[in-house]
Amino acid sequence: MLEVYGHGGDVETASLRYGIAPNGFTDFSANINPLGPPPGLLDRLKEALPGIIRYPDPGHRMLTTLLAQRNEVQEASIVTGNGAAENMALALLAISPKIVGIVEPCFSEYATLSRQMGAKVRSVFGTEERAFKAEPKDIERLIADSDLVFIGQPNNPNGVQYGLDELRFFADAGERYKTYVVLDEAFIDFIPASERQSLLPELERYKYVILIRSMTKFYAIPGLRLGYAIASPPLAAEMIDKQVSWSVNLLALIAGEHCLAAGEEYEAKTIALVTQQRGFLQEGLNRLGCMTWPGEANFLLVRLPLGWTAAGMQKALGLRGILVRSCAMYPGLGDRDIRIAVKNSEDNRKLLLEMGHVLGGTVL
Amino acid sequence: MLEVYGHGGDVETASLRYGIAPNGFTDFSANINPLGPPPGLLDRLKEALPGIIRYPDPGHRMLTTLLAQRNEVQEASIVTGNGAAENMALALLAISPKIVGIVEPCFSEYATLSRQMGAKVRSVFGTEERAFKAEPKDIERLIADSDLVFIGQPNNPNGVQYGLDELRFFADAGERYKTYVVLDEAFIDFIPASERQSLLPELERYKYVILIRSMTKFYAIPGLRLGYAIASPPLAAEMIDKQVSWSVNLLALIAGEHCLAAGEEYEAKTIALVTQQRGFLQEGLNRLGCMTWPGEANFLLVRLPLGWTAAGMQKALGLRGILVRSCAMYPGLGDRDIRIAVKNSEDNRKLLLEMGHVLGGTVL
Repeated sequence: MLEVYGHGGDVETASLRYGIAPNGFTDFSANINPLGPPPGLLDRLKEALPGIIRYPDPGHRMLTTLLAQRNEVQEASIVTGNGAAENMALALLAISPKIVGIVEPCFSEYATLSRQMGAKVRSVFGTEERAFKAEPKDIERLIADSDLVFIGQPNNPNGVQYGLDELRFFADAGERYKTYVVLDEAFIDFIPASERQSLLPELERYKYVILIRSMTKFYAIPGLRLGYAIASPPLAAEMIDKQVSWSVNLLALIAGEHCLAAGEEYEAKTIALVTQQRGFLQEGLNRLGCMTWPGEANFLLVRLPLGWTAAGMQKALGLRGILVRSCAMYPGLGDRDIRIAVKNSEDNRKLLLEMGHVLGGTVL
Repeated sequence: MLEVYGHGGDVETASLRYGIAPNGFTDFSANINPLGPPPGLLDRLKEALPGIIRYPDPGHRMLTTLLAQRNEVQEASIVTGNGAAENMALALLAISPKIVGIVEPCFSEYATLSRQMGAKVRSVFGTEERAFKAEPKDIERLIADSDLVFIGQPNNPNGVQYGLDELRFFADAGERYKTYVVLDEAFIDFIPASERQSLLPELERYKYVILIRSMTKFYAIPGLRLGYAIASPPLAAEMIDKQVSWSVNLLALIAGEHCLAAGEEYEAKTIALVTQQRGFLQEGLNRLGCMTWPGEANFLLVRLPLGWTAAGMQKALGLRGILVRSCAMYPGLGDRDIRIAVKNSEDNRKLLLEMGHVLGGTVL
């Protein structure tokens, strides 16, 4: 397995394992925008480089203003973080939950961070029939029994969303039981605006809801680290109070400012590409005998044909310079399950071709 | 006061206050290497920029290896952090001290981070006669009464070191009372190697000592964030266990690797410049009627002549495009105290000239 640190995108480990340079892989194991960073970003950062001799703004003032405008919330509701993972850690530090509830399968950091911060982790499971979404009643019970619950929206690794009614049901349960409901929207930007299910427009009604957003995936800047949370101003203030000074670096702040101004064209192009290519990949994978679930994000959960394992496929593709994410370690998933990022047409064709060779079947 | 976030180097606040662009100041309020980053670093980062589409190595493997070699310790003793401040936070998270001891005046993050993490802060005070070092007996009592004690070596804002015998006395007390002694060596690299007082070579003897180092000051990369801690392998492992995944960004890792290879010439030049210019500044400041203490780092604690305040001087200089750090808010210091970074000859002359104008005296 390549996931020695619990995550995809670990090209250093892959390089050691397969003898290919870290930047020599076509990487389907991390879910990064296939268009790359927005136009002009690398030039903007090149210009900004000499500025690293100065400290970043400890108040993230410019970026906070832009994020508040973009999301139509008060500035006091924004917590800018060193990656979405830091925002999760800040929520845990601010709230100090004794019991954290999670919905398996899900992003492994929910449990890892919770245990790091001394919480016990309780879980319910999604069902295969509901594309690994859990039954609302099970989540309600989880909320009743926990101090804080993480829900991926859309969830990683299956890519499905809960409906708005379900989200309201969870948020209401959170208010009723005084349980914080952390909705991880790290991948929601990849979904067409009209299809996004988010409590953002009605967030003022909820004192126990925290939304978490990532800027590293959609804007293809995971190396810089940038995420943010949106919550009621008192809750946001408690999270900010737990943040280490200058946690968000100068180039991440500048990149964030540039990305938010990158404009609708880049965003629309990304969403169109991902939607189209996800369909293409899905069809190709099904033709190869793989099962897929109806994910809406920029990745797909895939079950390999009988007789194959995630580990075997990961290695076979890795030696061919292609990385996929094994999902064998996700509770609730099996050892034939992998996750595949949606990349551009050329890369996706290459993946299907190589998987076809490995599986020994016909392709395209 | 400019220190709305509790620190110097806040050029954004200065810009709002004085109507000068953030990069338009000569900044003596942050203690950054006046030579700027090591030769070739900006070019190296320019080349590396396209790599931000990939995650940083979550294990910081390459940099950890280099840091272990440089410090002649095991790799398992190294904790690479998102700035030295994160290393302090990780120590607090790993150890969960109920009571943290500090020696005032000192870096404000010791108390801020400790309170953030739920600890109570207890302090002893340095004495003016000992250049604001505390009496060893007072520190011993502080160690006896605390679960973790922070000691700056050299201490910020006065820049003085404890002697090796004093450090051993503190470390032995730490072992005896099972109290962690965190020696903050963020500025020690600016001191000639022969004059550095550090427990590094004998660290194996101490299970309760943590050394913290910054790479942002000496290598002039505060915008990127990079620091590390050195501790016994079990303690280092506990600190790493509290770290959020990908906390250290990709460019910081690359910069760290480059800086460690930058070579002795840059390091020797830095130390020579700082030593020489500190003497020049000290002499000039004394001639202007300011009192200084015998700091050994790349900054000086300065007491303004009677009738002046730190706030008044900060504003007068700020309007002239020069930033100094007010020390009025440091417990144990007074409202005439400022901290001045040692910069290059041209900048230092400019500071003395402008301070001379403000003070209405003769200069140089």
